[in-house]
Amino acid sequence: MRPSVQTLTVDLGERSYPIHIGSGVLARAELLRAHVAGRQVMIVSNETVAPLYMQRTLAAFAGFQCASVILPDGEQYKRLDVLNSIFDALLEKQFDRRCTVVALGGGVVGDMAGFAAACYQRGVPFIQIPTTLLAQVDSSVGGKTGVNHPLGKNMIGAFHQPNCVLIDTDTLATLPDRELSAGIAEIIKYGLIRDRQFFAWLEAHMDALLARDPAVLAEAIERSCRNKADVVAADEKESGVRALLNLGHTFGHAIETGLGYGAWLHGEGVAAGMVMAAELSRRLGWLEAALLARIETLTRRARLPVRAPAQLEVDTLLRLMAVDKKAQAGKIRLVLLKSLGEAVVSDDYNPALLRAVLRDFRADETLLWRYGDGHG
Amino acid sequence: MRPSVQTLTVDLGERSYPIHIGSGVLARAELLRAHVAGRQVMIVSNETVAPLYMQRTLAAFAGFQCASVILPDGEQYKRLDVLNSIFDALLEKQFDRRCTVVALGGGVVGDMAGFAAACYQRGVPFIQIPTTLLAQVDSSVGGKTGVNHPLGKNMIGAFHQPNCVLIDTDTLATLPDRELSAGIAEIIKYGLIRDRQFFAWLEAHMDALLARDPAVLAEAIERSCRNKADVVAADEKESGVRALLNLGHTFGHAIETGLGYGAWLHGEGVAAGMVMAAELSRRLGWLEAALLARIETLTRRARLPVRAPAQLEVDTLLRLMAVDKKAQAGKIRLVLLKSLGEAVVSDDYNPALLRAVLRDFRADETLLWRYGDGHG
Repeated sequence: MRPSVQTLTVDLGERSYPIHIGSGVLARAELLRAHVAGRQVMIVSNETVAPLYMQRTLAAFAGFQCASVILPDGEQYKRLDVLNSIFDALLEKQFDRRCTVVALGGGVVGDMAGFAAACYQRGVPFIQIPTTLLAQVDSSVGGKTGVNHPLGKNMIGAFHQPNCVLIDTDTLATLPDRELSAGIAEIIKYGLIRDRQFFAWLEAHMDALLARDPAVLAEAIERSCRNKADVVAADEKESGVRALLNLGHTFGHAIETGLGYGAWLHGEGVAAGMVMAAELSRRLGWLEAALLARIETLTRRARLPVRAPAQLEVDTLLRLMAVDKKAQAGKIRLVLLKSLGEAVVSDDYNPALLRAVLRDFRADETLLWRYGDGHG
Repeated sequence: MRPSVQTLTVDLGERSYPIHIGSGVLARAELLRAHVAGRQVMIVSNETVAPLYMQRTLAAFAGFQCASVILPDGEQYKRLDVLNSIFDALLEKQFDRRCTVVALGGGVVGDMAGFAAACYQRGVPFIQIPTTLLAQVDSSVGGKTGVNHPLGKNMIGAFHQPNCVLIDTDTLATLPDRELSAGIAEIIKYGLIRDRQFFAWLEAHMDALLARDPAVLAEAIERSCRNKADVVAADEKESGVRALLNLGHTFGHAIETGLGYGAWLHGEGVAAGMVMAAELSRRLGWLEAALLARIETLTRRARLPVRAPAQLEVDTLLRLMAVDKKAQAGKIRLVLLKSLGEAVVSDDYNPALLRAVLRDFRADETLLWRYGDGHG
């Protein structure tokens, strides 16, 4: 029996590509093979995902000249020197510029494999096979690739669209609870910035989502990817509306960078950041208190932090937020909420208000994680 | 008195840009300032060029928030880890994505500054101010950027077009003779691949060129840039005709990589490679012996090597040539000559012929440099 598959399209003219979503689709070799131009396939994965899914992926590319490179697992390894190990592997195997790079893993693997593909011989094709919820609903779609710098997240990178995104929802069975929640943060984000109905649906289905109900997971992924695909198609290089996808990210990146990459998951920083952006929006008189409460409640229910860690000083957070890619001439531009489902990019706020939110919306780690399920 | 300036255009639609050529044009601040969008300017140079021209360049950007980063001088430093020092400087200064990166130096500086601009915050504008003849006639035009890998030249990079190229021919006054000759190699190349009249003009003016006659230098640069701009406009991403610009480069890159980056200059490897490509073309019956003799004679007159160094084994050269970016499925594709001024990309040759050329066209370093003027 063939597994059923839902296919969405990211509409980018001649660089359009499909997103295939379904249970067991990694066994549908023809979905992948249609997107390989040459004969050489380099599968990039990490030490956690490779033991689980590398064999299945190699089987899907049977008949091609396959090789693999296994990266260490974690945001702290999303670095230029680790990226170089992908170039080493490609050159040692004498892969030419008709080769295809395949990302098998979460957001870190996808960002690094994609950036390697963007730069190898000035650009080779690549395929995303995201295996974490966060990568499936966000980072694998849209062509943002890159690595971190000690002074800022994702500061070094490229726009490089994949030829295909293949989402096998079965891979979520092995995902730790903490990473499931981190992915839900980005799902909630779509509700906040542009899809109020989706937010309400999430309020109704959060328990089922956390229980990994297959149908609910599949619908959440599909609705998220549809939102992401629409935004990317409208503004590929982030000159406008795409910036709204960064709700919570300026706060979140500062938390991630300040704590050291890998301490908090990306989705956790984003979750706390979204609540802080919502609070600033409320203080500006843009967002009703009742909506803020719904946002905070849903985020807590997803077992995500809703405050920044108290160990980071306000000045530290402000300094780190100032290197955000949206910053211009020293002004921190933020994604803020006009309502539930309506976001804007703005630097039209009193800096003292931002400082006050940072001061008031911090909490001890121990308190932060009382909602959680085993933060290590 | 305002210095006179010749302006060519690289025609790439909305990414078109001017090449300004002239004596003293670095003092024409308005030519540069028109291409800076934001307020922040990062000047990337090296330890040789910065003492000579950094002050003049900073003066041209007076009024902007300027900073600089000085790289070590030499092809052996065109590496990913040295590239990172540019990102360090940009982030330490909190430069945002409206900043402009300026390359002030030769091909290595231009390739690295351009690649840093391509990757910083996924792409910021950049300006080329080439100060070597090679960079002025070749590498500063066309948007190829990148770094080397121990296993292959220019294997990691991006296409990223500059916003402007400013060529001040006065900077050639300080150029060592050896680097002048290396630049002439790329000038001769345009004659060989597409401009037979230019080749004849070079035969008539080689002595004046080596004597740095200003008018002859200016004409050689302008005719070279015009050839380069035409080719790039026709095929920006090298899916076709642009590959012809790589005449001699597959051989040359193998020599550079085999000897260790920095031992031979890029233009020296290209010179020997062009003669070897011409010899292979002759053995294939495509090029008359008399034309080969003219090519070899002109190259020698330019004080350039016309053989590969004997210390590199034939098998070593073949292995290094096989990782060339033009290679496909293990086949080494070469730019070969059908006549003087007419080139093709081909893998339609007997590999034994290539091996024989590599065997026969090597010489001891001491012999190679009898034409030269102080090879270190």
